[in-house]
Amino acid sequence: MFLDMFLKVAGAASIAALLFVVYLARQVLSKPQGTERMAFLSTQIQKGAAAFLKREYTWVSGFVLVIMLFFVVLGMVKPDLALNWKTAVSFLAGSVASACAGVVGMWIATRANARTAAAAEHSGVKGALDIAISGGAVMGMAVVGISLLGLVIIYKIFDGNPTIVNGYAMGASLVALFGRSGGGIFTKGADMGADLVGKVEAGIPEDDPRNPAVIADNVGDNVGDVAGLGADLLESYVEAIIAPLAVASIMFAANPGTTEFVRSFPFFVAAIGIFASIIGVMYVKLFAKNNPQSALMNGTYISAVLAIIGVFAYTWLRGEGFTLEGVAYGKFGPAIACVVGIIAGMVVGFVSEYFTSGSYRPVQKLAEGCQTGPAIAVTNGTAVGMQSTALPVLVLAIAVMVAAHYAGVYGVAIAALGMLATTGMVVAVDAYGPIADNAGGIAEMAHMDPKVRHITDNLDAVGNTTAAIGKGFAIGSAAFAAIGLLSAFMLSAKVTEVSIADPHILAGLLIGAMMPFFFSSLLFGAVGRCADTMIQEVRRQFREIPGLREGLEGVHPDSTTCVSIATQGAIKGMLLPGGLAIVFPLIIGLSPLGSAGLAGMLVGAIATGVMLGIQTANSGGAMDNAKKYIEEGNFGGKGSEAHKAAVVGDTVGDPLKDTVGPSINILIKLMCVIALVLAPLFAG
Amino acid sequence: MFLDMFLKVAGAASIAALLFVVYLARQVLSKPQGTERMAFLSTQIQKGAAAFLKREYTWVSGFVLVIMLFFVVLGMVKPDLALNWKTAVSFLAGSVASACAGVVGMWIATRANARTAAAAEHSGVKGALDIAISGGAVMGMAVVGISLLGLVIIYKIFDGNPTIVNGYAMGASLVALFGRSGGGIFTKGADMGADLVGKVEAGIPEDDPRNPAVIADNVGDNVGDVAGLGADLLESYVEAIIAPLAVASIMFAANPGTTEFVRSFPFFVAAIGIFASIIGVMYVKLFAKNNPQSALMNGTYISAVLAIIGVFAYTWLRGEGFTLEGVAYGKFGPAIACVVGIIAGMVVGFVSEYFTSGSYRPVQKLAEGCQTGPAIAVTNGTAVGMQSTALPVLVLAIAVMVAAHYAGVYGVAIAALGMLATTGMVVAVDAYGPIADNAGGIAEMAHMDPKVRHITDNLDAVGNTTAAIGKGFAIGSAAFAAIGLLSAFMLSAKVTEVSIADPHILAGLLIGAMMPFFFSSLLFGAVGRCADTMIQEVRRQFREIPGLREGLEGVHPDSTTCVSIATQGAIKGMLLPGGLAIVFPLIIGLSPLGSAGLAGMLVGAIATGVMLGIQTANSGGAMDNAKKYIEEGNFGGKGSEAHKAAVVGDTVGDPLKDTVGPSINILIKLMCVIALVLAPLFAG
Repeated sequence: MFLDMFLKVAGAASIAALLFVVYLARQVLSKPQGTERMAFLSTQIQKGAAAFLKREYTWVSGFVLVIMLFFVVLGMVKPDLALNWKTAVSFLAGSVASACAGVVGMWIATRANARTAAAAEHSGVKGALDIAISGGAVMGMAVVGISLLGLVIIYKIFDGNPTIVNGYAMGASLVALFGRSGGGIFTKGADMGADLVGKVEAGIPEDDPRNPAVIADNVGDNVGDVAGLGADLLESYVEAIIAPLAVASIMFAANPGTTEFVRSFPFFVAAIGIFASIIGVMYVKLFAKNNPQSALMNGTYISAVLAIIGVFAYTWLRGEGFTLEGVAYGKFGPAIACVVGIIAGMVVGFVSEYFTSGSYRPVQKLAEGCQTGPAIAVTNGTAVGMQSTALPVLVLAIAVMVAAHYAGVYGVAIAALGMLATTGMVVAVDAYGPIADNAGGIAEMAHMDPKVRHITDNLDAVGNTTAAIGKGFAIGSAAFAAIGLLSAFMLSAKVTEVSIADPHILAGLLIGAMMPFFFSSLLFGAVGRCADTMIQEVRRQFREIPGLREGLEGVHPDSTTCVSIATQGAIKGMLLPGGLAIVFPLIIGLSPLGSAGLAGMLVGAIATGVMLGIQTANSGGAMDNAKKYIEEGNFGGKGSEAHKAAVVGDTVGDPLKDTVGPSINILIKLMCVIALVLAPLFAG
Repeated sequence: MFLDMFLKVAGAASIAALLFVVYLARQVLSKPQGTERMAFLSTQIQKGAAAFLKREYTWVSGFVLVIMLFFVVLGMVKPDLALNWKTAVSFLAGSVASACAGVVGMWIATRANARTAAAAEHSGVKGALDIAISGGAVMGMAVVGISLLGLVIIYKIFDGNPTIVNGYAMGASLVALFGRSGGGIFTKGADMGADLVGKVEAGIPEDDPRNPAVIADNVGDNVGDVAGLGADLLESYVEAIIAPLAVASIMFAANPGTTEFVRSFPFFVAAIGIFASIIGVMYVKLFAKNNPQSALMNGTYISAVLAIIGVFAYTWLRGEGFTLEGVAYGKFGPAIACVVGIIAGMVVGFVSEYFTSGSYRPVQKLAEGCQTGPAIAVTNGTAVGMQSTALPVLVLAIAVMVAAHYAGVYGVAIAALGMLATTGMVVAVDAYGPIADNAGGIAEMAHMDPKVRHITDNLDAVGNTTAAIGKGFAIGSAAFAAIGLLSAFMLSAKVTEVSIADPHILAGLLIGAMMPFFFSSLLFGAVGRCADTMIQEVRRQFREIPGLREGLEGVHPDSTTCVSIATQGAIKGMLLPGGLAIVFPLIIGLSPLGSAGLAGMLVGAIATGVMLGIQTANSGGAMDNAKKYIEEGNFGGKGSEAHKAAVVGDTVGDPLKDTVGPSINILIKLMCVIALVLAPLFAG
């Protein structure tokens, strides 16, 4: 009953989150959209985004059906594995939850954009910030609300059976993979296409309405940074709850004397995190002055501190010690692990900011180096990203050690959950960025007063910083979530006794370490092909539509074709890497390498995946901001040789930070969760 | 006595190698140097190279002394660890052996260059090839001859005690690390400096005598590709012999019934490999027609086949089964592992060639993509390198499994040795490249007949292919050698029982996985700073030396200053990364992470190091050859937009393939060998 109570608490928290979503959404929609032209542009973006999501989810449904079929058949062929239609149902629920959160988030984000621009015109920074953060918070709270509610229902129906419940995380992970990689290909294919022809060849400014690829570019920001990011963190969130539950249920099976505290704790952390996030969002809405940066940061801190207080209070009241693999741990162990996770997440985020913000040395030096030409720009940008791996990894390593010291493998899993407790707030702050960015695009295309663009640029710049922190956070949490899942997999596949010197593990490790590299190369290829088709199309339109280049009244580019090119490129490009990520763990697990080899593979994939993830995100972010730093007038400003070099650097960095990096996060989590779900198959 | 006999055989083989070195060197030196101008240029390169080596070795001696002192003090403070002055002596011997091989190789390479150019003028392709390959073979045979002789002596004096003998490999590894990273910084700092001002700003051709940095660039080719590569493969070679010896002696200690066959086998493989290499070199010298490519490839095949035949014949005559960790293995186990290693090395090499040669799709597509601009060129180049990791890694994983199946951990170590058995031949073919390249540089600077440049370009192009194969080989062998050392370390530190789920291992793994990234960022930084200083200096000379840019008779640039800038940049740049590589394993081993954490760290470093090593080498190689492919007249040829983009790609790729990639090879080996040597310290 104790556990039951906490299912109810978590369920109530998730419903509270959803009510908050409704409240915020109504507030956003009640605001004016601005001029007819603005409404028209916003509608175009909405249509493009909806069209993409529809096609993407159609394809993903195919994968979902095949995998469900796999479970159903497996249940009939090998009934003793306990992998059957129930896992299929749970898997379906996870994928539907992720898809719903994506639809809700996109729906509001593509409606908040014009309204943010209109608010900037009428009520300045504060008004615009309010709409942008409300729009972001709809996404954030939808992510945690929908996913937690679904999980509670599945957990309740199937009585917490991990073989079934884990399927929920796998569903969320699958949708996230396609969301991130498809969205990433879309956004960068469109962006590179728009920039390379528009800015470079035709010499027209960014977001110019004459450029046929601009709408696709704006759609891409929503597709990649809103839906993609949301699906990514939703997955981490679900997995961070699932992993300690899986460990706890294995503990419980081995030692029925284990208290229910460890089983209820993950639900409690999730619940307290939701309330903490709601308060954080409300703080930003109510107390933001003209400094959006500090408002957003303070909101984030407030929710983190509240979550910590809640976790300790609960532990103080109800915590109990427990035994895991023969070691006894104190009652505060999980709470400490949780705090360690929260702190580690923040540190990783700050390091990302240090290496990618124009306010610090690394980006300034990078901008300075741009004066020597594009090759040096790219080389230095790569170096900055590589350098930025050191601190986060040390922090992660220390966090793993500390969490394990206080609560064993369970603690490692809980640390991941701690990091993700305030996911609602983190996603809100993160999704705010693309809304502000889109608002700027609409302001430009609708020829609004330059002061509007100035405000939205200001909001966007803050959004870039918070996005960098968010990306660091996404990687850190992905690493932790993956380690948690890995631990759960090894416990349930009983490979904890396998030595690191085992050749199966070594072979698996090499293959796993290779996966993120190979996967990245496929994504790069897809982005390149998509951008290439886009470039041809934009060139064609400039050539064949009379008066387009000159900007004659009434001549509009054919944006729809560009959106559908990006959509096609994204769908085509995501199938192979996505399929490989699903099939590889299965192949390795069933091969002579077996469970041990699969464990090695996961370890290898985490090792290179985390590093590549950090490096690509920060290299890309640093090059982007080095360009912006030059555009502010440093080292010659816009149009100088340094600026040209920085543009090349930025173009190289774009797919790194927006396609490859985020997709790798999901790759490693997905492979771990597939291994965990299929563990009975490989053990059998 | 059986083992003693094989020490004698190995000693005899190494003396044969050294006699062959003397024979080849005399032959090279007997050839004419060409005109006075050519001799002058050659002398300048010789002086520059000698000056660099002198400064480098002076600094390295400092490190060597400190480490020797460390062992001596350790022996006095903790006498029971058996790490004392004896290990210090062995360590010194290893570093001296590597330094000697470097000096001999550089000495001859910087003398063979002008003679190759002169031979090209007088006796065409065949004559030039003969000198270039003889020069390369001096390096190759010196590497194997000196290192094996030193090892045999140390092994004999200290009765094969692994705690002492392992120090020899550590010495070789230390010199290699500084040789590779220092040499890599030198060569790319000079190259980028020469190209960016010379070709791009001043608009003068490559290797133009007016460019003050050209001599430094040519010195760099020798420093990086001859001395650096030699030290790299010397290290792998020594470690590939040491690792199975360490495993064998642990086996012997655990089970004195183990036959001496497993202890003599590594020496026999080394000896047979030397004779096979001599025959391979002689084949190239005697039977090369006008097709240098096929001559070099056939020579390589011949030595590999001879080595295989020798190994099997010996096993057939004297092989005996053995028991390791409770498992019995057949007498042909080690021979099979050896062949697996040889084949894996070849496959990895061929994959490198496929991805980096202009004759195949990847580079051609890369060249095509250059038409879209520099950003796409760099992105696609990165993607090609990432894609190229897949096959080599699968091959390595399979090789590890097969070798372990037939001969356990011993087999994994022996596979590494198999791959390196014909190191003499591999280095000969590899060092041939820079000699041909230098010959071309001298031909250009001495204004020789264009046909000479045509011949040397042809030889150089072949050299690029063989260098790509050699680099693949170096990475493959480094991976294998590192795995062999890791296995030996885990056996001797008794961490074979530690589970992969242990948080110490996970934390160590994350830190280890980060090392190659952080190390790379330091090297990138050093190359960038070195190139930057070089650029300032070249600009200064063009500005301040009257008549230099116009090429007035009698006006010479101040090459010496450029050489010393590169030298300083290299020395300064190598100290921090080199120091970190040495200190990190020590810190981790002594920290709470302990031996288990150190094992995790090594595994992590191997995982990311191998991938980054392959990616950087092949990305760099592919971008280089894409540029050359365009220069052959494709996609607009020289001067086109595609060519400009390809030049940017090539400049980005240069430090990847010549500084970062090769240094990472050594980083992972050095950390493994330090762990192995210091294992008693961490266990104690």
